[in-house]
Amino acid sequence: MFSFSVLASSGAARAGLLTTPHGRVETPAFMPVGTAGAVKATTRAQLEEAGAQILLANTYHLMLRPGDELVAERGGLHGFTGWPGPFLTDSGGYQVFSLAALRRVDDDGVSFRSHLDGTAHRLTPERAMDVQMNLGADLVMAFDECPPSTASREEIAAATGRTTRWARRSREAHRRADQWLFGIVQGGVHLDLREKSAAEITALDLPGHAIGGLAVGETKDDTWRVVEHVVPLLPADRPRYLMGVGTPEDILDGVARGIDLFDCVLPTRNARNGQLFTSAGRLSIRNARYRRDPRPPDAACGCYTCRTASRAYLRHLHLAGEMTAATLMTVHNLTYYLDTLRAVRQNTLLGRFEEFRREVLRALAASEAEADGGA
Amino acid sequence: MFSFSVLASSGAARAGLLTTPHGRVETPAFMPVGTAGAVKATTRAQLEEAGAQILLANTYHLMLRPGDELVAERGGLHGFTGWPGPFLTDSGGYQVFSLAALRRVDDDGVSFRSHLDGTAHRLTPERAMDVQMNLGADLVMAFDECPPSTASREEIAAATGRTTRWARRSREAHRRADQWLFGIVQGGVHLDLREKSAAEITALDLPGHAIGGLAVGETKDDTWRVVEHVVPLLPADRPRYLMGVGTPEDILDGVARGIDLFDCVLPTRNARNGQLFTSAGRLSIRNARYRRDPRPPDAACGCYTCRTASRAYLRHLHLAGEMTAATLMTVHNLTYYLDTLRAVRQNTLLGRFEEFRREVLRALAASEAEADGGA
Repeated sequence: MFSFSVLASSGAARAGLLTTPHGRVETPAFMPVGTAGAVKATTRAQLEEAGAQILLANTYHLMLRPGDELVAERGGLHGFTGWPGPFLTDSGGYQVFSLAALRRVDDDGVSFRSHLDGTAHRLTPERAMDVQMNLGADLVMAFDECPPSTASREEIAAATGRTTRWARRSREAHRRADQWLFGIVQGGVHLDLREKSAAEITALDLPGHAIGGLAVGETKDDTWRVVEHVVPLLPADRPRYLMGVGTPEDILDGVARGIDLFDCVLPTRNARNGQLFTSAGRLSIRNARYRRDPRPPDAACGCYTCRTASRAYLRHLHLAGEMTAATLMTVHNLTYYLDTLRAVRQNTLLGRFEEFRREVLRALAASEAEADGGA
Repeated sequence: MFSFSVLASSGAARAGLLTTPHGRVETPAFMPVGTAGAVKATTRAQLEEAGAQILLANTYHLMLRPGDELVAERGGLHGFTGWPGPFLTDSGGYQVFSLAALRRVDDDGVSFRSHLDGTAHRLTPERAMDVQMNLGADLVMAFDECPPSTASREEIAAATGRTTRWARRSREAHRRADQWLFGIVQGGVHLDLREKSAAEITALDLPGHAIGGLAVGETKDDTWRVVEHVVPLLPADRPRYLMGVGTPEDILDGVARGIDLFDCVLPTRNARNGQLFTSAGRLSIRNARYRRDPRPPDAACGCYTCRTASRAYLRHLHLAGEMTAATLMTVHNLTYYLDTLRAVRQNTLLGRFEEFRREVLRALAASEAEADGGA
C-alpha cells in the first residue's frame, strides 16, 4: 500500500517516488495548504490542473470546525473534500502553539481555547492520533510541541523531550495501516538538542521523518545549519519533510540538502496579496507599471491564468477586490511552485540539480524591473 | 453581423435567437452580472461550463475603474476579460442614481462623485456612448435617468422626458456598427408615462428595447402591471430586456409576458450568502440540517458543484469563510438559472411554456424542509 524509493540523487538532492493508498507522489514535492479542507480560493479541478499531487490539511482547524468526527462520517478528508489524491495532516501542535488562546502544556498534553469561539479543548498524543485517524489522511504526524524561536534553551530542551515522549505515545496510539505516521524532530537551533531528538525519534522506526520547529523566526543561516546537521541523522531510505518551508529559494535550498517534502502557505497567501512568482522573478500586481500591461504574469507558464489573463486585467481585479483575482493568482503561484519542483526532479534525475538550482536562483534574484522586462 | 428572430411562441412567451458579432444568444436568456469585468468568484472557464452565453458588465463601475480608455486599449471588454462571447453594458444611469454621491442632474447630463474615491465625474448621453463604445460590448444601452420608486409623479415625468431626449442624443452619438444600441422605456408605475415613453423610444427605431425603472422598490403587482402594459407597445420583432430582474419566479413571470433578456445579481450574490436555488426549492446552506448531509445541493443538477461537493462540505466551507464556498455556490446558482432558462426555451419551442412554468413555480414554492427532503 505504501512505499518510498529514491530513484536518483544529484549531490544531496533526491528524486523519489512515494506511493500511498490514494496515489503516487513524485518527490521532491510541494504540498499546497488546504487548511480547512480547501486550498483557499481554488476548486479541486483547478488544483488538479495546476498539477498538485498531494494536499496538506490542518488537524487543529478541522478538529475545531467542522469536527473530525463529522469528517470521518463523510468518508474522511477524501470523501468530505472530494480530493482523490493523497493528503497529509499535520499534528495540530504547531497551530496550538501559534493560534490557540490560553494554552497550558503539561507532560500529558495541551489544554487550550479555540481561536474561533473560545471553547475549551485538549490535545494529547492519543487524541491527536484519534483526530488524524478520523481525518484519514495518508500521511499523519506524531504530536509534537513546537516552541517559539524566542524560547530559552531550557524551554526548547523540555519541549524536545516531551516531543519524544509524545512521539512514542503517538506510535502506540496510531492504529491505521492505511496511514503512514511520521515522527518530528525538534530542538530549535541547538545542534545537540537536534541530535538527541533525531536519535530518539529515528529509534521509533517510523516510515518518515519531519524536521519541525524551523522557519519560525530564526535566521536562514540557523535554518540551514540545523537542516544540514539533522538530515544525515535521518534514515536515507525514508522521506524527509521540512515543515512550513518556504519561498522558492528555500525549497531549492532544502532539496539541495536532501529534503523530499515541503508545504507552505506562501504561494496561496501571496497570491491573495497580489504577489506573483514567475520564471523571471517576482511581480507585485498592484505596481502601477502593470496598469496597461497586456502580457500574462509569466510568458513561460502554461497555467490557466497565464493562458487567459493579462497583468492589466489581474491588477484591475485585484484592486477592485474581486475574488476572481485571488483565484487566478493562486492558480498561477501554485503552478509556479509545482512546475518548479517538477523541473527540480527532472534535473535531479539528469544529475544536474545544482546547475538548475543556480539558474532558478538567478531568475528569482531579479529585481521587479528586470522581471517585468524579462517576461 | 446582428440579427434577432423569434422562432416560436407559447402564449406570450417567445423562443428566439439573437446573433451578435461575438456569437449567438438563445433567448429567453439570463445574463450573469460581471460588474467589474468578472462575474464575482468565478473564472471564464467556470462560466462557460455553467452555460453562460452572454455577460453583463457595468458601465459606471468600469468607467471609474480601470477606466474605459484602458479597457479600449486592451481590446475592449472581450480583449480585457478574455470572455469570447457577447457582452451587454448598461447605460451607467441606474448606478449613478443608486451608488454615486452628490449627484446633480440637469438637462444635459449628471454630475456626480465616485463612490470609490470621491473624484468628480460627469455622464451625458454623449459621454455614456463614448464609454460604451470604448468598452465595446455587443449590446449597449441609451443613457437614461432612473428615479427611485419613491419619486413623485412629477419627478418621474421629468425623468422620463429627459430619458427620451437623452435616448435621441445617444442615438446621434453612437457610431459603432458592431454594437446594437437599445432604448430604455421609463415612466415608473404610471401607465400613461410608460405609454408616452414607449411611443417616443420606439419612434427612434432602435434594434432592441429595455424596460427600466422596475424592480426598484415597487410592488410586484405594479411591476407586472407595467410590463403587461408596455410589452405590447414594443415592436415584436426586436428583443425586449427587463433590466435587473430577478428571482427565478420573476424571470418566469417576465417570460410569460414576452420578455427575452434578463439580468440580476441575485444568483451570484445569494451564492456568496449561502442561498442556493435548486430544482426542489431554496436551500440556505447555513442551516444546521445540512451539517452532515452527504447529498449535493441538487441531485438533479449536473454542475461541477453538484458533481463534486456535498451540502455538508459546502456548509463547512461557507461557515469557515472560505472563498471556495462562494465559487462553488456561484457555479451552482448560475447553472440553475441558465439551465432553467434553457428548459424554458425548450418548452416554449414545444408549445408548453405554461405547463413548465407551473411545474417550476410549484418546486420553488416548496419550504426548505420540503426542498431538503425532495432533493
